[in-house]
Amino acid sequence: MKKTNLEVSSGSKYKRRDFLKKSAIGAAGGVAALSIASPAIHAQTKVRWRLASSFPKSLDTIFGAADVFADAVNQASNGNFKISIFAGGELMKPFDVLDGVQDETVECAHTAAYYYIGKDETFALDCTIPFGLNARQRNAWMYDGNGMKLLREFYSNYKMLNFPMGNTGVQMGGWFKRAVRTEKDFKGLKMRIAGFAGRIMQGLGVVPQNLPGGEIYQALEKGTIDATEWVGPYDDKKLGFNKVAGYYLYPAWWEGGPQLSLLVGKKAWNALPSSYKAMVNSAAVHAHTDMMAKYDSRNPRALKELIATGTKLLPMPKQVMINAFEISQGLYADLSKKNSNWRKIHADWEKFRKDQVDWWKVAEKNYQDFMSYQL
Amino acid sequence: MKKTNLEVSSGSKYKRRDFLKKSAIGAAGGVAALSIASPAIHAQTKVRWRLASSFPKSLDTIFGAADVFADAVNQASNGNFKISIFAGGELMKPFDVLDGVQDETVECAHTAAYYYIGKDETFALDCTIPFGLNARQRNAWMYDGNGMKLLREFYSNYKMLNFPMGNTGVQMGGWFKRAVRTEKDFKGLKMRIAGFAGRIMQGLGVVPQNLPGGEIYQALEKGTIDATEWVGPYDDKKLGFNKVAGYYLYPAWWEGGPQLSLLVGKKAWNALPSSYKAMVNSAAVHAHTDMMAKYDSRNPRALKELIATGTKLLPMPKQVMINAFEISQGLYADLSKKNSNWRKIHADWEKFRKDQVDWWKVAEKNYQDFMSYQL
Repeated sequence: MKKTNLEVSSGSKYKRRDFLKKSAIGAAGGVAALSIASPAIHAQTKVRWRLASSFPKSLDTIFGAADVFADAVNQASNGNFKISIFAGGELMKPFDVLDGVQDETVECAHTAAYYYIGKDETFALDCTIPFGLNARQRNAWMYDGNGMKLLREFYSNYKMLNFPMGNTGVQMGGWFKRAVRTEKDFKGLKMRIAGFAGRIMQGLGVVPQNLPGGEIYQALEKGTIDATEWVGPYDDKKLGFNKVAGYYLYPAWWEGGPQLSLLVGKKAWNALPSSYKAMVNSAAVHAHTDMMAKYDSRNPRALKELIATGTKLLPMPKQVMINAFEISQGLYADLSKKNSNWRKIHADWEKFRKDQVDWWKVAEKNYQDFMSYQL
Repeated sequence: MKKTNLEVSSGSKYKRRDFLKKSAIGAAGGVAALSIASPAIHAQTKVRWRLASSFPKSLDTIFGAADVFADAVNQASNGNFKISIFAGGELMKPFDVLDGVQDETVECAHTAAYYYIGKDETFALDCTIPFGLNARQRNAWMYDGNGMKLLREFYSNYKMLNFPMGNTGVQMGGWFKRAVRTEKDFKGLKMRIAGFAGRIMQGLGVVPQNLPGGEIYQALEKGTIDATEWVGPYDDKKLGFNKVAGYYLYPAWWEGGPQLSLLVGKKAWNALPSSYKAMVNSAAVHAHTDMMAKYDSRNPRALKELIATGTKLLPMPKQVMINAFEISQGLYADLSKKNSNWRKIHADWEKFRKDQVDWWKVAEKNYQDFMSYQL
C-alpha cells in the first residue's frame, strides 16, 4: 500500500509477523491485556511548547482547535509534553505568529496561511484560494496527493513545517445592507473583504475595504461600508451582523474550504523524541477533523435562528461567480509568471482540482442533489 | 466551549494559566524546547492487543486503516503499545469479529457495523442506512452531535465501545450487465446486494442475492446474477467488474457515507493507562480521516481508467430513488415500532439528517454546483 503523508515515516514499522510468531501461544484464546509488570524501559522526556494563535477566544471553534490539539498531546504524553495556548494578541499580534515561529519566539502557531500572501502568495495554497478545493478534496490533496510534500518544501524556506489543523467548510458569501441580485448591484459597493478575494472583487467593481474583525459591526451600522464577509452562520451570529445588514449571500466562492494550519518550527520539531512527533501528527489530525465536525454540526441551527430573526438568504448571482472565476484564472496565471513557488505548487493543485470536480460530479453531487430534492 | 465527543474526557485538562505563571520568565524570548534532563517520572506500560479486521488485504484503503491506526499508536507509545492486525479470515471469519471482541478473543476489531443487523438493526446506525448522512455530516453527528454518546450506550450492551475509523464517501450504484434507465428495468433483476438495501431493492422488484465478494465476478460473468454493488472506482476496478458488466450506475443511494468502526472491548479498554486511551482516541481519528482522503484522492483516476476502457456511466433513475426513499421511510418507521434501541437512536439521527440537508442546500451544494458547472 502506498504510504500517505499522514503516516509518520520516522520510527520503524511494527513487525506484525514477528510478534505473531512469538505471542501466538500465549495470547491465543483470551484477551492478552496488560503484560505482567515489566521494568521501566522508557522514561518520557519533559517538553514545554508555546503556541501562538492568530484567533480570538470568541471564535471558539477555530481558536478551540488549538486546545483540542494541546489536550490530546498532553494526555497522550501523560502530562509530559505540555503546550500552552496564547490567543491572538496575547504574546504577539494575530498576523505576527508566522514570524514568531520563524524567529523561534514560540515553538508553534495556529493560523490561516493566506494571511501571509504579502510575504509570498504561495502561502494561500496552504489555506484556500478563490474557487478552491472543498474540505474533503483538500484533505485528499494534502494527505494522499502532493499537497503536504510540496508545501513542506515551501515552508522549509521559513524553517518550519505545516500540519492541516481545521477547516470551516464552504463559507457564506457575506452580509449586505441592500439586496444584491445582479452583477450591477456589486458596482461601487464598499465591502470588507481582503486578500485574493478583495483583488477579484475589485475587478467586479467592488471597493474592497480592509478592517479588523472588531471594527466591522460599527462600520456596517454607520454605513461606512455596505457589506462584509466573515465565516458562516455559527460565527457570524455571534458578531451580530444580522442586526445591521439584512441580506446574507451564499456561497463564498472565495472560501470553498479554507484550511487552518499548525506551523511548527524546525528546531523545536527536530528536538522532539519520535514518539512525541507521532503524537503531534495524530493530535493535529484529531483537532483538524474535530473543527470541521463542530462547524457542520453547529451551523444549521445558527442559520435557522438567523432566518427566524429576519435575515434574508440570497444566492450569489451566477454571472458574478462566472466573472469572478474568469478574473481568478487571470490572477493565477499572472502569479505563475512571476512567482516560481506559486507556479510549481499551483500547477499540481490545479490539476488535482479538475480531477476532483470531475469525480464529485458523479456520486457525491448526485447523492447530495437527491437528498436536497427529497428532504 | 462545549466539549465534543472527540475530546477524551478522562485525564485532567492541562492548566494553561498555572504553567504560564511558573514558566513566563524562563521561556520568554526564545524556544524552550527540551527542559534539562529530568529524572524519569513515568515509565510506559507494555500492552499487546490483537485487532481482527473484517476486510481482506486486497481492499488496501479499508484494511489499511487498521495499519495506520496501529502504527500511530505504536509510534506514539515508543513501541510499548503494540496492536497486531489480522485480516478477515486469519483469526476468525470476517463477520465474526464483533463476537470476537464481545467474548474477549481479541481486544478490538475493525469492521462495518451494518454487518450485524441480524443481531440488532441498530448496528446499522453506526455505519450507514439508505439515504443516510454523507461523510462530513456523519462526523458532525458522531463527534459534535449525539451520535457517539447514543451509540456508546448501545454498544455497552455488548461490552465494547466504538470509534469511527474510516469512510468511503458516497459509493457507486453498482455494475449492471444491461443498461437500466427506468424503474421498469429493475424488475426481476438479480442483483448482489444485501442488508437494508437488499430489502428496499426487493420492494422495487429486484431479486437480491447474497454472495461473498470473492464469488461475484464469476457469477456476473456466467450470468447467474445481472448486477452487483461493491464500493467505488478504486476498489471496483481491482475486482475487474468492468470486464463482465458494461454499465456503472451512480450514486449508491444506500451508501451515502458508510463509516467503518473500531470496536474495543470494555475490559481491554478499562485496563489501559489514560495516556494510551488518549493515543487510541487520536489515532482512530487519524486513521478515519486518512481513509477518506485516500478514497477521495484515488477514485478520480480509477474512474477515468474505467471509462477509458469502455465502462458506460448511467445515472440512477430518479424515480427509482424516489420509490426507494419512500420504501426506506416505511422500513424505518416499522423498525421504530419493533425495536426500542433503533427508535431512540434513529429519532435523533433523523432530525440531525434533516437539519444537515437543509444547511447543505445553502453554501456547500451551491458551491459544488458552480464548480461542476464551471470546470
